Amino acid sequence: MTGTQAEHFRCTVAGGIARIAHDRPERKNPFTFDSYAALRDWFRGLAYSEDIHAVVILPNGGNFSSGGDVHDIIGPLTRMSMKELLAFTRMTGDLVKAMVHCGKPVIAAVDGVCAGAGAIMAMASDLRLATPEARTAFLFNRVGLAGCDMGACAMLPRIIGQGRAAELLYTGRAMSAEEGERWGFFNRVVAAEALEGEAVKLAERIVAGPTFANSMTKTMLAQEWNMSLDQAIEAEAQAQAICMQGRDFTRAYEAFVARAKPVFEGD
Amino acid sequence: MTGTQAEHFRCTVAGGIARIAHDRPERKNPFTFDSYAALRDWFRGLAYSEDIHAVVILPNGGNFSSGGDVHDIIGPLTRMSMKELLAFTRMTGDLVKAMVHCGKPVIAAVDGVCAGAGAIMAMASDLRLATPEARTAFLFNRVGLAGCDMGACAMLPRIIGQGRAAELLYTGRAMSAEEGERWGFFNRVVAAEALEGEAVKLAERIVAGPTFANSMTKTMLAQEWNMSLDQAIEAEAQAQAICMQGRDFTRAYEAFVARAKPVFEGD
Amino acid sequence: MTGTQAEHFRCTVAGGIARIAHDRPERKNPFTFDSYAALRDWFRGLAYSEDIHAVVILPNGGNFSSGGDVHDIIGPLTRMSMKELLAFTRMTGDLVKAMVHCGKPVIAAVDGVCAGAGAIMAMASDLRLATPEARTAFLFNRVGLAGCDMGACAMLPRIIGQGRAAELLYTGRAMSAEEGERWGFFNRVVAAEALEGEAVKLAERIVAGPTFANSMTKTMLAQEWNMSLDQAIEAEAQAQAICMQGRDFTRAYEAFVARAKPVFEGD
Repeated sequence: MTGTQAEHFRCTVAGGIARIAHDRPERKNPFTFDSYAALRDWFRGLAYSEDIHAVVILPNGGNFSSGGDVHDIIGPLTRMSMKELLAFTRMTGDLVKAMVHCGKPVIAAVDGVCAGAGAIMAMASDLRLATPEARTAFLFNRVGLAGCDMGACAMLPRIIGQGRAAELLYTGRAMSAEEGERWGFFNRVVAAEALEGEAVKLAERIVAGPTFANSMTKTMLAQEWNMSLDQAIEAEAQAQAICMQGRDFTRAYEAFVARAKPVFEGD
Repeated sequence: MTGTQAEHFRCTVAGGIARIAHDRPERKNPFTFDSYAALRDWFRGLAYSEDIHAVVILPNGGNFSSGGDVHDIIGPLTRMSMKELLAFTRMTGDLVKAMVHCGKPVIAAVDGVCAGAGAIMAMASDLRLATPEARTAFLFNRVGLAGCDMGACAMLPRIIGQGRAAELLYTGRAMSAEEGERWGFFNRVVAAEALEGEAVKLAERIVAGPTFANSMTKTMLAQEWNMSLDQAIEAEAQAQAICMQGRDFTRAYEAFVARAKPVFEGD
Repeated sequence: MTGTQAEHFRCTVAGGIARIAHDRPERKNPFTFDSYAALRDWFRGLAYSEDIHAVVILPNGGNFSSGGDVHDIIGPLTRMSMKELLAFTRMTGDLVKAMVHCGKPVIAAVDGVCAGAGAIMAMASDLRLATPEARTAFLFNRVGLAGCDMGACAMLPRIIGQGRAAELLYTGRAMSAEEGERWGFFNRVVAAEALEGEAVKLAERIVAGPTFANSMTKTMLAQEWNMSLDQAIEAEAQAQAICMQGRDFTRAYEAFVARAKPVFEGD
């Protein structure tokens, strides 16, 4: 799984970090049926990748993504049978599932328009940076749909709280970068010219860590979503015991004893 | 289900929006056994209403509600059998269930005293506005009871976070409007003279949207409360597919193509 | 269960409040195998205590706790079998379970270093105060481990939000006191010289309340963690009905009628 120029989005890989971006900046990077499927398959493949340990999703041309294209997606959807519609909504949901289960931390670097499925991709990432110009809109109800799209009614409340999520989902209004930082959606707001650099720096910090253990963190953040507290604590006892038999744990200990900085190797 | 002067609370309906308020301003709008039951039944009926698409709960005389009346409710409760007590706590819980399952977004407009069951009604609403004078107190432990009343230990942590909820529930202290906004309890703080207008404007914006889809959003926000992430994503795939066969989705698409503003009809 | 000088941590009891602290300030209060077990057993015993109604965990020598000791704990762990490792991670998890199920509100008073298992103990408390110098780090990934330690992937997101929790767990970076207050981890930041006093004052306020009902609040905050909304509301109807047959409820009513301050006795 190396960096290639995919058909619907750009992808480059270096230093264990994949940088991906939609590749239609002149249209503000809309999704198409094909790009949903391509992204879903790319994130599914990522689960088995040995050379990518973090993903940075970048804007392109000053915008993150405008979501499902009106002409390419919404038009056709209005003419589909229920069977076809469900196949579509399951495909978009599968993209989120693939992001959640890919085993690598995903960082969304949001600039400009971040709407619909674009907002969902930011939401389904693990960490989020934004520029002051980022405008994030879960605008489904403005096209006649419900706010429950691709997991939004489950995930957004856990990121920004139930009341704020409800407002965004019922009105479709844009969340500003400042609101997003204050509410916990964005981890940080940085200037547009610094965005890619800061996102990659954060990814580098994570990739320099114990990547097998990071992958376990990602697994458990999803796995414990609806466990009881006691179940979650037992699940973590097992997961952490696995990591304690990993070699990176020994490397950290030996580096500490030698007063050196540990060099993790991801096993 | 038209706007009428109910016995225990006022209700007027216009433009698809019901405005309700307790009707004992001289006592800061306490609950009585009868008003609990009347509100429960009103929200239950709302699920089948075709002419109400959002609810605004208003203060009356500068106060939202002081909660269960000491003389009318607390006194009698201290003399009840366990069977009677459980019938009472189930009735109050049924009010919250009825609000959660009514299918219409509920906006609480909070001013002045908002305590006990009043604070619960604000919490169980979808959106909340406040005046700077709003004082919201989950004061159950100050009358010798537990913080687990009408769903507070489940819902409040998801709105403002587990640590802040714990403080309010263990101490019974009032949350100021400023805290409430900063913590995500209130979506916005507005001056007292603007409160009703702003709450109704927000309701109008929601009612101008696709009301069938909004109702699905409300259903799914509750439905996904304790689903796994994968279950929630599949549930939303089904729910959104239903909305995609709704006519409002086609109306939105056609309006977009015609460069017009969509007019939703709620089917 | 009276206040005694335990082997690994200090404990004094007065006025229904236990003050505990690690007792190795020269090493910034690290955990050892024995102190994990001693704390677990102490919190387990607390569930049956009739003379302790709140716990304050204090720093010692300007630091809360540095977590698992590198020499005493991490070294030995790198040489253990899987069976032994799981016994260890289950013991640490049992400490959190014991804190969650002890039935008494726990207040962490955090100053200086609060790292690893120390950060977990703060997280597993009900309420948290901090000094401006508090530095809280879930630093597991910096020693080659996963962020899923002792329940962190379940509990931390519910306190500060999913995105902020993910950042702390993937990077191991310290959260400042200011961030912690803004994010809802700390209920308040106070000067170092005021920390113990303010924490005890908060505990006194809680202990002056209805302690049996407070214990029910604690039980239900954990119990409803992954219930559906309807299940949580029914569970609270039952729990609160139990509290309504408690004598403290009657005491509160009678005090109100007599225009006096209620004196609760905890039954």
